[in-house]
Amino acid sequence: MVNQFDFRLLATDGLARRGQMTTPHGIVQTPAFMPVGTQGAVKGMSVRDLRENGAEIILANTYHLYLRPGDRLIARRGGLHRFIGWNGPILTDSGGYQAFSLGPRRRITEDGVCFRSHLDGSEHLLTPELAVDIQARLGSDVAMVLDECLGYPAAEDEARRSMARTLRWAARSHDRLLSLRSRTADHETDVDPTPVVINPGQAQFGIVQGSVYPNLRRESADATRAMDFDAYAIGGLSVGEPTDVMYEAVAATAALLPVDRPRYLMGTGTPLDLVECVARGIDLFDCVLPTRNARNGQLFTRRGPLNIKNARYAEDDRPIDEECGCYTCRRHSRAYLRHLFLAKEINASTLNTLHNLHFYLDTLVRIRDAIVFGSFESLKKTLHQSYSLRLLAHDADD
Amino acid sequence: MVNQFDFRLLATDGLARRGQMTTPHGIVQTPAFMPVGTQGAVKGMSVRDLRENGAEIILANTYHLYLRPGDRLIARRGGLHRFIGWNGPILTDSGGYQAFSLGPRRRITEDGVCFRSHLDGSEHLLTPELAVDIQARLGSDVAMVLDECLGYPAAEDEARRSMARTLRWAARSHDRLLSLRSRTADHETDVDPTPVVINPGQAQFGIVQGSVYPNLRRESADATRAMDFDAYAIGGLSVGEPTDVMYEAVAATAALLPVDRPRYLMGTGTPLDLVECVARGIDLFDCVLPTRNARNGQLFTRRGPLNIKNARYAEDDRPIDEECGCYTCRRHSRAYLRHLFLAKEINASTLNTLHNLHFYLDTLVRIRDAIVFGSFESLKKTLHQSYSLRLLAHDADD
Repeated sequence: MVNQFDFRLLATDGLARRGQMTTPHGIVQTPAFMPVGTQGAVKGMSVRDLRENGAEIILANTYHLYLRPGDRLIARRGGLHRFIGWNGPILTDSGGYQAFSLGPRRRITEDGVCFRSHLDGSEHLLTPELAVDIQARLGSDVAMVLDECLGYPAAEDEARRSMARTLRWAARSHDRLLSLRSRTADHETDVDPTPVVINPGQAQFGIVQGSVYPNLRRESADATRAMDFDAYAIGGLSVGEPTDVMYEAVAATAALLPVDRPRYLMGTGTPLDLVECVARGIDLFDCVLPTRNARNGQLFTRRGPLNIKNARYAEDDRPIDEECGCYTCRRHSRAYLRHLFLAKEINASTLNTLHNLHFYLDTLVRIRDAIVFGSFESLKKTLHQSYSLRLLAHDADD
Repeated sequence: MVNQFDFRLLATDGLARRGQMTTPHGIVQTPAFMPVGTQGAVKGMSVRDLRENGAEIILANTYHLYLRPGDRLIARRGGLHRFIGWNGPILTDSGGYQAFSLGPRRRITEDGVCFRSHLDGSEHLLTPELAVDIQARLGSDVAMVLDECLGYPAAEDEARRSMARTLRWAARSHDRLLSLRSRTADHETDVDPTPVVINPGQAQFGIVQGSVYPNLRRESADATRAMDFDAYAIGGLSVGEPTDVMYEAVAATAALLPVDRPRYLMGTGTPLDLVECVARGIDLFDCVLPTRNARNGQLFTRRGPLNIKNARYAEDDRPIDEECGCYTCRRHSRAYLRHLFLAKEINASTLNTLHNLHFYLDTLVRIRDAIVFGSFESLKKTLHQSYSLRLLAHDADD
């Protein structure tokens, strides 16, 4: 029984949207945050932890899984859901962002991205078609098209050329998916019996590029919409630009996207970024911040971030966040968590990650409730009081 | 409401004993395995994981906690149970074994062990009295006396001198505990308000030494028993001697210990060691083997150990152990666990540890049941078929 991909708008408060995204593996309440499971695992979190924290969808990285253990191996295991033991919705990125991040180890041509593996130096050409095929074999619920992700700043002519290429790649990606969908089982030959399409209900999202140039963003949005993707993402942000520039680009681009499809802001952000971008009409987020920072000892609380390494917590018997209901806060003190962190115990990573993800997912719960009850502006103000732009320098007890 | 330390023998099968050890923080069914939580955490396991796996008592290391975060800090937090969030029984070693393991960084005198911290090189003198005081401040349910742990082989005269010193240290440890117990609160001065005794019901175990020499073991057992400890441990084994030599020393020593007190074999061992030493009358075990080997990819199964790195598991959709009911086995395949291990994901450590500890704790359940039902010999045979002495070279599917 395959659910068709679908999105319903349930309520709005200003530009903020409360919705429901249906995927072949279940429903996602939006706005939603997707924990990042790069290699098919959210670092430090079991599937049960994710469920108990309220995660409804996770993200996995095509680049990493393609190189190891390989998309064909995963397809032979029945697809990514079965392989990793998570039967809820999964979104996979296209692999483009990681490939671009390789710097001198990659070269971009009209064909695709030529790169050397970070694992063994082997050469690979990731084309838009291959990115579609890999994700078809992974069987994620949402596949992203291959796009070119520019850094910041980028000159306008460079941004235009890159945006135009992303559009041509989007068309190729769309064509490839249609061709895969029409394939029959006889394409799975004895020579390579790897299944081609694991998840027939897989959706495909287009990605709007154009750096920080409103005219390019408009051109990209119009042309991408014309291809009629299941939904649209905003790419090329959170790449080093000032926050106000990002917020402006998000607002301008979100306004160009159809109201009846989810809008996904890729790779963002701080708790403040989430609420500010929901305020500009974004429905989906992913970011390594809560998980990575947890491993580095930065913990998010309702009063702002705190760094558990800090000597002031050595004899602090309070939980990380007195209002938090997560397992870590119900069970352990700051003093103990500081000890685990300084002692380099694995448990520091797992307990901190559990808390930070709970904070993020709970923030989204509060955002969704606020939209329904018309109190979104007031929630936004509350979050502003705790989370300034000085995120990394600030401490909850300062 | 403090429970007094107590031990009741419930059933026997040959020399194997089924008992119940009562401690201030609860009851432990014996024979029991104590997961090792060196720094106040069983690596990769939450308290909930431990409980769900059936752990009833854990071990923590005095040496590590004394150096970081410090026994006084822990006492000010209300003791080790509160500090780490585990309200079940805890046994603490004396710190001696770790200090002795420091090799050139330690020197033994009649006074105690002089050592340099592995953390910052600072000098410390661990006396029998200090080991008692530290453990009183930690507030564990069972404290071990400071002993001298010789390596293997040791000449008889060296073993005799060392055994004799351990006896003198045991007497000093026993005296110190009696003196602490008789202290009143006015010893907690304003200058150092750290509580002296956290857990008034704390038991103290003596340790029998004597290397592999039956006459020394007898002398040590007789003299240690004469001090009337709450129970007795067998130390100085699992230090490099052949397995049959260890089994023989265990049998000889266990026979010298009182039947109405638990017998603890320190730092042992493989699944086979457990069953063989239960067969010789041992009630308590601790070992880093299941947790450390889990992190190195060696997993225990009912058919023997397997190494998850092995290429043969790349596309193996079975759980680690098809008869195992642990979270890892219910949820994940060997193929996925191999991927996590090769990808160096934290989750490889946590999922593997969860399984290995479940295997150990479940083996003890089977041992306890077998003793009650008189089928211990048959269980021992079964375990022998799966676990040979070639533990590390062997693979479950060979």
